[in-house]
Amino acid sequence: MRAVDLIRLKRDGGTLDAAGIRAFVSGATDGSWPDYQLAALLMAIVLRGMTVDEASTLTAEMVRSGDRLDLSEFGRRAVDKHSTGGVGDKTSLVVAPLAAVCGVVVPMMSGRGLGHTGGTLDKLAAIPGFRTSLSLTEMTRVLRRVGCAFIGQSDQIAPADRRLYALRDVTGTVESVPLIASSILSKKIAEGICGLVLDVKVGRGAFMKTLEEARTLASTLLQIADRSGLDAEAVLTAMDAPLGRAIGNATEVIEAIETLKGRGPADLEMLSVRLAARMVVLAGIEADDEAAEAAVRRALVSGAGLERFGRIVEAQGGDPGVLDDYTRLPGSEVQEPILAAGTGFIEAIDAECVGRAAVVLGAGRDRVDAPIDHGAGIELLFDVGDRVCEGEPVAIMLAATADRCAETRALLSSAISVGPAAPTCHPLILETLTSGVRPGEIRL
Amino acid sequence: MRAVDLIRLKRDGGTLDAAGIRAFVSGATDGSWPDYQLAALLMAIVLRGMTVDEASTLTAEMVRSGDRLDLSEFGRRAVDKHSTGGVGDKTSLVVAPLAAVCGVVVPMMSGRGLGHTGGTLDKLAAIPGFRTSLSLTEMTRVLRRVGCAFIGQSDQIAPADRRLYALRDVTGTVESVPLIASSILSKKIAEGICGLVLDVKVGRGAFMKTLEEARTLASTLLQIADRSGLDAEAVLTAMDAPLGRAIGNATEVIEAIETLKGRGPADLEMLSVRLAARMVVLAGIEADDEAAEAAVRRALVSGAGLERFGRIVEAQGGDPGVLDDYTRLPGSEVQEPILAAGTGFIEAIDAECVGRAAVVLGAGRDRVDAPIDHGAGIELLFDVGDRVCEGEPVAIMLAATADRCAETRALLSSAISVGPAAPTCHPLILETLTSGVRPGEIRL
Repeated sequence: MRAVDLIRLKRDGGTLDAAGIRAFVSGATDGSWPDYQLAALLMAIVLRGMTVDEASTLTAEMVRSGDRLDLSEFGRRAVDKHSTGGVGDKTSLVVAPLAAVCGVVVPMMSGRGLGHTGGTLDKLAAIPGFRTSLSLTEMTRVLRRVGCAFIGQSDQIAPADRRLYALRDVTGTVESVPLIASSILSKKIAEGICGLVLDVKVGRGAFMKTLEEARTLASTLLQIADRSGLDAEAVLTAMDAPLGRAIGNATEVIEAIETLKGRGPADLEMLSVRLAARMVVLAGIEADDEAAEAAVRRALVSGAGLERFGRIVEAQGGDPGVLDDYTRLPGSEVQEPILAAGTGFIEAIDAECVGRAAVVLGAGRDRVDAPIDHGAGIELLFDVGDRVCEGEPVAIMLAATADRCAETRALLSSAISVGPAAPTCHPLILETLTSGVRPGEIRL
Repeated sequence: MRAVDLIRLKRDGGTLDAAGIRAFVSGATDGSWPDYQLAALLMAIVLRGMTVDEASTLTAEMVRSGDRLDLSEFGRRAVDKHSTGGVGDKTSLVVAPLAAVCGVVVPMMSGRGLGHTGGTLDKLAAIPGFRTSLSLTEMTRVLRRVGCAFIGQSDQIAPADRRLYALRDVTGTVESVPLIASSILSKKIAEGICGLVLDVKVGRGAFMKTLEEARTLASTLLQIADRSGLDAEAVLTAMDAPLGRAIGNATEVIEAIETLKGRGPADLEMLSVRLAARMVVLAGIEADDEAAEAAVRRALVSGAGLERFGRIVEAQGGDPGVLDDYTRLPGSEVQEPILAAGTGFIEAIDAECVGRAAVVLGAGRDRVDAPIDHGAGIELLFDVGDRVCEGEPVAIMLAATADRCAETRALLSSAISVGPAAPTCHPLILETLTSGVRPGEIRL
């Protein structure tokens, strides 16, 4: 079938067969499909959707477009964690070493931040010397040494996804559940894992704004994982306010290290322990949540998690001295407070606004190729529900120049609302969905 | 607004404003929008549609992307005719000289054939020496000499449409009423006409398969024409069986000349006279259909139409000797009959199958850049409803080789069905819609 016929088929609401999807993916990989035909098919997929079968085939073909790591030498089930993207979400930095201490092999592939959401690779890049552009051979070597490795997507891993993602970014074709799901899962499957814990963020600061949308994405991810032989589960977590109090890169690394020292914010610690515990269960190391959480808490309280994080940093070329001396991380020339607009309770901290404010300060990027300032960011001084007095500092802006702070002030102020009544508190963990679940049969 | 934001807006069902459409069209014209962004927006338009306002703005911007001819020197309203494409449709060759004899200035812009439908430019190219790639200055000169000129789209005329059409062809984005309508009308408006008669084909051999689809296209065309100050009307005509009996290029030129000699097939003559009469009315030369038809018939019967066609051929560099000596036109090495499969009535002649059979014989093309054999084609020996006996020839295949005929035989045989009962005859002209008509207010 010619490219144009496949495009027309999807445009008219048809279903692409395996040969058609293979043609599309290999056309994207070897360049035999021009960008305009890829773009037209992507838009047709966004508007017409894909069946789970189509999305599973797409995932498998994107895996086949590159290498697939063989981790059988470890004799244990490798498990990764993936977050759909939030603000202040530094859980990967806490979860990976804790799970590794518990015996999980953790090949953790991460991305860079875009728009208001941050990316683990940018945070790690704040650590002097830290290299995430490892080859698969180097990654295996790090895994052997410290049981965990952080890497970015390379040309070896799902190259079709790389080309398609770059094109989706500039053609308005990012927002599609099957395309998002197959992009996430193809990279994860290629890294040779057996289990995957998905942190699907829901709310103002997340890509999925409603629980319904998040369930659809989670269910699609789980169904594709199921067909791909990947043991997966999805934890739906609230992303209305930022996670923790630090937003940026160096500042988030510090908060993650503090959490590994047992001094982190409660929400971040709770979620990190839960996600790490689910990885321990999926790895087959503990049979249930309770035992797994206990193991993870031991790894945290004993300092073994912190020690492991230091070894990971060292194994990947970074300066482990940052664990004890935060001045080795990039700092900011300017720190300016945001003052409370009134006296009362902090009713909401709008994660999306905070994320956008961090971008304006220089901590994030709006274009994939924009540079970022690893020392820039935001430190929140209160949580939602806390009491504040008018004129009291509620957040600190970290930036290279006072101009950046001036540009950001109004946006960040508007993100933190103070009102007369204490807001109702909502749970952070909303639902857990496990593999094999079908839409309409969601197990809570 | 950035390209990607306009794409996202249309993807989500929004309406593009004039500035957005201008950005899109100038991006297509000057190449500042890459093909993949044009393709993504085109697919979003196909699936989300456009309002009449959007399509009118798109039309106006495509006109603005090139030159617009000024025909005011003629002191008369120039009128063109456009067909949405059929099989055996050589009316342009008959209509243009007849209308010109009646005093209409006829700048006729035509296209090349694609798929199963033929194109006027290919037919004219069968006449030795005939040039249709005239500049607008040359066209004006021909109009001054003979009152009528046939031209193809050039870089001077709506270049944005040219680039977009080429892209639509390879990205599955041809089938969109607003895109089709604005493509047709931008070229017509650029040629400086005041009136336009649209022959909207309906049926098996047409792009629009149902009356409802044809009405939608016709109504959209008329509404855009209205907003563009163009006096237009649409004649919806049946295209289930081919028009006339000749399908191909040289063979259709012969049939058109025969029609101008008063010896053409009844359906072709009737439709040509009707369309030419409507042009005469739109030009303001006659007040009503009756008077206009009488004038056109006089032009036909007197031989003035034939004589004018000869002068047009000569003015555009062609050999006017073809009018009297058909052997000057390209012929075919091989002529092979198709025999009636049974005895009875010809129940149907499937125009689309016949059109596709003509392509296989070499008379048409499946790719825009494919060469064609001007001598190849099909001559039907009967009309729908005629009686035939088993084994009697019902059609002649004209081709360069016997292999081409062998390849075509089954397809063409299947197109001509013979049955025991005389079929009900349907009218050729189904409806006429006039400018200013709104959907739901269609005047019959």
